[in-house]
Amino acid sequence: MKNLGYYNGVCDEIENIFIPMSDRVCFFGDGIYDATYSRNYNIFSLDEHLDRFYNSAKLLEIELPYSKQEMAELLNDMVKKMDTGENFVYFQATRGSAAVRNHTFPSEGRANIWINIYHKEILNLEKRVQLITMEDTRFLHCNIKTLNLIPAVIASQRAKEAGCFETVFHRNGRVTECAHSNVHIIKDGALITAPTDNLILPGIARKHIIKACKEMNVPVLEQPFNLEQLFDADEVLVSSAGALCLVADKVDGKSVGDKATEIVERLQKTLLQDFLRETN
Amino acid sequence: MKNLGYYNGVCDEIENIFIPMSDRVCFFGDGIYDATYSRNYNIFSLDEHLDRFYNSAKLLEIELPYSKQEMAELLNDMVKKMDTGENFVYFQATRGSAAVRNHTFPSEGRANIWINIYHKEILNLEKRVQLITMEDTRFLHCNIKTLNLIPAVIASQRAKEAGCFETVFHRNGRVTECAHSNVHIIKDGALITAPTDNLILPGIARKHIIKACKEMNVPVLEQPFNLEQLFDADEVLVSSAGALCLVADKVDGKSVGDKATEIVERLQKTLLQDFLRETN
Repeated sequence: MKNLGYYNGVCDEIENIFIPMSDRVCFFGDGIYDATYSRNYNIFSLDEHLDRFYNSAKLLEIELPYSKQEMAELLNDMVKKMDTGENFVYFQATRGSAAVRNHTFPSEGRANIWINIYHKEILNLEKRVQLITMEDTRFLHCNIKTLNLIPAVIASQRAKEAGCFETVFHRNGRVTECAHSNVHIIKDGALITAPTDNLILPGIARKHIIKACKEMNVPVLEQPFNLEQLFDADEVLVSSAGALCLVADKVDGKSVGDKATEIVERLQKTLLQDFLRETN
Repeated sequence: MKNLGYYNGVCDEIENIFIPMSDRVCFFGDGIYDATYSRNYNIFSLDEHLDRFYNSAKLLEIELPYSKQEMAELLNDMVKKMDTGENFVYFQATRGSAAVRNHTFPSEGRANIWINIYHKEILNLEKRVQLITMEDTRFLHCNIKTLNLIPAVIASQRAKEAGCFETVFHRNGRVTECAHSNVHIIKDGALITAPTDNLILPGIARKHIIKACKEMNVPVLEQPFNLEQLFDADEVLVSSAGALCLVADKVDGKSVGDKATEIVERLQKTLLQDFLRETN
């Protein structure tokens, strides 16, 4: 299997998976998702991703048909079908189906379960990345990992057009997160990262960075920071499931960071070791 | 045909229409739509809805494969297949397909075209409706008719649970629109309606109400109004393709309006006559 799709019990190459037009994803993007990586056929931090997935579902009142354990077994079985152990492991749930389009919840409450798995490795942490910035015009539910992703699509496209890796969102100057990553800064030996309110996704990689910093005796400040602080930071970090902890060297074409290389190298080493150990 | 679906040239009952999992609607809700009604097999205000549809596509850089005229012919042909002339006529476009999930635009740029048509008549204008209010937590692109509709889903569900017709959104007290309608007030003989900025959808029914008011010598003020003005209004109106101009008698359980019945009756009569004449 090269690109495995799954929909409500049917499992095949993605090009053979078809979705009924009555699925509420079609008209409302009405669903939630989560994603992580596997290595050696072991899925990284699956429990944490499943916890967040079930929390997203709860926040949108989407009733999942499986227990966390059943969902874990399903994902592990799917990964075993792949040709390689190194994969992107993506799963989502949509708010059921209804033949007639209607905004309100369908009477048949059970969610539809989707999975998509394909070969992909986590990113090389050594290469510094470039970012752009953009006003954050998204909704006020960014703590929920929903399928309403048009602003993230547009911001990612703008980054690509600028030859950059990611877009840093800000609300009136206050940095929130990136289009599909969290963003953090290091200043005067401390990690500063936005608090987990409704403006950012509570990233699993973010949690791992905080844990690693604490182990390294690097102080962690979970508090808002602005664009000025980003440009003035000793280091600018970007994190996601596939980019455990990347370091930026340019934002909007201006050089940033490169003033706390020792901390970021230790941090990256710790995070990568954790990833390799758990997926051994 | 009772509930007709269409996807990229395939046309059948909706339960026989299946969408490839690689369509970008599945992972990002990455698309736009529009909808109107037919009567006697004639589609109401199709040109205006197509203009808005093409504008939504342009704003999101979605490249439509058909001209407006081809799209109109396709929709008219579809309506002719129905058992009845009175239908909900819904169409959408998604930003193509890509086997591998990626936020950035797919290299194959052509949009996928979807249509859904089923029997439904416009609402009876005589019955007064009830509304609830809710903080508007949506994104700042409400002028684009996108498939990122989770906040509208939740707000519609809350209205249904309260036994109400619709939810009035407000941003810090400033009334924007409803979950799937525009909202307007009448005060001291004038119509007040929010301006068409990025906080509201430029409703076709809203445009028809403004036109009708001008013909009736009712002054029209396209300016922001707040919740206090809504509760204090002489009348509260709700408009959409299926509810040309409904009048509310309660908001959050409190009685509203009923102080300019003569104006709303004339307005409703004008709008209904226009609808009946155009779809004769």
